[in-house]
Amino acid sequence: MNKQNLFASLPADLTHEVFEQVGGSDTVLIERIVSKAHVTPKGQWYDQDRNEWVMVLKGEAKLQFEDVEPIHLKVGDYIDIPAHCKHRVSWTSEETETLWLAIHY
Amino acid sequence: MNKQNLFASLPADLTHEVFEQVGGSDTVLIERIVSKAHVTPKGQWYDQDRNEWVMVLKGEAKLQFEDVEPIHLKVGDYIDIPAHCKHRVSWTSEETETLWLAIHY
Repeated sequence: MNKQNLFASLPADLTHEVFEQVGGSDTVLIERIVSKAHVTPKGQWYDQDRNEWVMVLKGEAKLQFEDVEPIHLKVGDYIDIPAHCKHRVSWTSEETETLWLAIHY
Repeated sequence: MNKQNLFASLPADLTHEVFEQVGGSDTVLIERIVSKAHVTPKGQWYDQDRNEWVMVLKGEAKLQFEDVEPIHLKVGDYIDIPAHCKHRVSWTSEETETLWLAIHY
């Protein structure tokens, strides 16, 4: 039984967003996402088969859903996104890494 | 689509530990646990049918597994506990609330 730390070992190279599995099973994926100024490419939307519960642990970001203003997420903010609810990341901080915890279930 | 904050609305009455569902489905439970000096009663162990991924978001705690030294968890530390892996909370901070995020899956 080993502990690990979600704030540790941030990747040095953030040319691309970094997705790392930190737990889970065949059906549930628990992952850490590290972003820095990354956004979902314009006109693209996530349309996922599973629900996604997502929380910001460091930094800040904006999540966009169809036909509403983007939602500004700061540390501790979380949102439970139902499967097939289209969304995109419209902004992440350029100043610091934005650390997400995402649970796909 | 609404955001909520995991650090907000900490319960005033912490006579008992407080468990609140913050997301999930029929099969996956995502919950916030708020402890302050609470421990699992002596001699009692959690022996769960599901896996539990758990992270400390505030405060600190010690998790005990059979036949090993307790594991000291601080902010950001997480551990993925397989189903039926017996464990107990042997200590949580008396100074401040300990906030856990637990995913039962």
